[in-house]
Amino acid sequence: MILTVTLNTALDLTYRVPRLDVHGSHQVREVTERPGGKGLNVARVLAALGHATTVTGFAGGRTGAELRALLGEEQGITDALVPIGGSTRRTVGVVDESSGDATQLNEPGPHITPAEWASLLGTYAELLRGDGTAEAGNSPVEAVALCGSLPPGVPVGAYAQLIREAHAAGVPVVLDTSGEPLRRGLAARPDLVKPNATELAGITGTTEPLRAARAAQRRGAHSVAASLGSQGMLLVTPDGTWQAGPPRSIAGNPTGAGDSAVAGLLSGLVEGLPWPDRLARAVALSAATVRAPTAGEFDEEVHNDLLARVKVEEHSEPAPD
Amino acid sequence: MILTVTLNTALDLTYRVPRLDVHGSHQVREVTERPGGKGLNVARVLAALGHATTVTGFAGGRTGAELRALLGEEQGITDALVPIGGSTRRTVGVVDESSGDATQLNEPGPHITPAEWASLLGTYAELLRGDGTAEAGNSPVEAVALCGSLPPGVPVGAYAQLIREAHAAGVPVVLDTSGEPLRRGLAARPDLVKPNATELAGITGTTEPLRAARAAQRRGAHSVAASLGSQGMLLVTPDGTWQAGPPRSIAGNPTGAGDSAVAGLLSGLVEGLPWPDRLARAVALSAATVRAPTAGEFDEEVHNDLLARVKVEEHSEPAPD
Repeated sequence: MILTVTLNTALDLTYRVPRLDVHGSHQVREVTERPGGKGLNVARVLAALGHATTVTGFAGGRTGAELRALLGEEQGITDALVPIGGSTRRTVGVVDESSGDATQLNEPGPHITPAEWASLLGTYAELLRGDGTAEAGNSPVEAVALCGSLPPGVPVGAYAQLIREAHAAGVPVVLDTSGEPLRRGLAARPDLVKPNATELAGITGTTEPLRAARAAQRRGAHSVAASLGSQGMLLVTPDGTWQAGPPRSIAGNPTGAGDSAVAGLLSGLVEGLPWPDRLARAVALSAATVRAPTAGEFDEEVHNDLLARVKVEEHSEPAPD
Repeated sequence: MILTVTLNTALDLTYRVPRLDVHGSHQVREVTERPGGKGLNVARVLAALGHATTVTGFAGGRTGAELRALLGEEQGITDALVPIGGSTRRTVGVVDESSGDATQLNEPGPHITPAEWASLLGTYAELLRGDGTAEAGNSPVEAVALCGSLPPGVPVGAYAQLIREAHAAGVPVVLDTSGEPLRRGLAARPDLVKPNATELAGITGTTEPLRAARAAQRRGAHSVAASLGSQGMLLVTPDGTWQAGPPRSIAGNPTGAGDSAVAGLLSGLVEGLPWPDRLARAVALSAATVRAPTAGEFDEEVHNDLLARVKVEEHSEPAPD
């Protein structure tokens, strides 16, 4: 079983409108409503790839109840979310039907109390020990993904602590966050981090992706998968460095593309695929997500088609600087 | 007791952002969440004016449950909403903190089945007979307000039917809607309609407000209160014609200002105030609502101050055309 952690879950609403006009009034044509937050998106893609997945993190209030009800309708995902007193946030994505471009509005997350954080740590430890919920099949955790921002009240070193506990249980960890939580997380030596070029530059002070990825390695990451937007992805590992891009330029909605990439890397890890195959899967899943009509979904046929045509190139390594 | 009917209720979310940028990503600074739909806003103002108010209409799904929970926390309002299988819509108002201007996104309403419409008619008849819920104190209905648009599935002649039933029970009716539901409603001879100038022009084909109000009277309305935006309000009755404007130009958020005007007219009606006093109250409440920091609220002190300074002028009547 793969475990994804989403400390800042959200109920994601997508509104389709003909065109968003600032200070105008709009009749929304179509509303979709989904459990969201990066780790929940990763879990959805993992489940679609056939991996049993358990999600933990926080959920509370009426929006939290709604999120859990919708999550219960999804196949292959076990809900191990921890209840909180505050209300789970909503996000609203307003998609222009003409261009497909989206305007994003994110509510602030609820404040997490020390007792709620302690409760999350307890659930996490149980899951790592394999004595979690019966629904999770009490199966051992093969890998952990730690995803997204930290809600107020959670210590900034939260991810470092979760990484150390996973490693103590012999479980590899993928970390997908940014800013100070990423900086602190690196020190706990995650197996893989997946920043984009901006996030990577933010913590390393270097805008050149290869140089920045090596700097992130020196700060503690075993491997670094840097997403480079339309340029695809750069993967720097102890065993080699590879870059891959989609076979053609992909137009569409990039929401959730990064989460699909994490799911690709994570599924490749637990399946023991060679690094270039993990990278190809991440790039193909990411591109298939951009192409899908609904944010964060992906079309399996598009994915298979792209996977066959992703070109992975190995970097000839210059001497490390 | 005053009864307000809101067939298209909504859970109203207000998001405050520094500035809305099309295709940008925004961290919402502050979220407020309220039971909405025009008749619920009217009820809130009536309750603040000290009038016991019962609300009916439709509510369903998780957003309907949330709306009813929030409504239960409000003082002076009795919930006689009829449950439906569909989900109550949300509206999202995005307010720019810099200018106070709002961008509005309205979800489509749920489809109402014939059985649900029949259930609403049953509840409405019970309330008119005074044998409604115990919470409503089984008190007689002094006046009815029919407010807002019709959700899909409700017959377009709905308001005409509700007006005839109220009149059969000897209860006066204020109608605040637009388009075909207003046109059909007029034929049932409502005691008062409150269109704005655009709505009035839409059904009468006349843009000059006084001429258009007289045309609406000929189509069935006993009296017409036409809201003219910053020009205030024109009131055409069988007893005379008056116009009143706020004492000064009012800047702010006009959301809910029309609903406050309905509450002013309705409370004046049940209190037996002379027409000019009803008009002054409607204009002062409306202006106080525009001035309030939260959409649809009003400040009592601002209201009292404005009320003392609203100027009502009687029109010398030209011969009816």
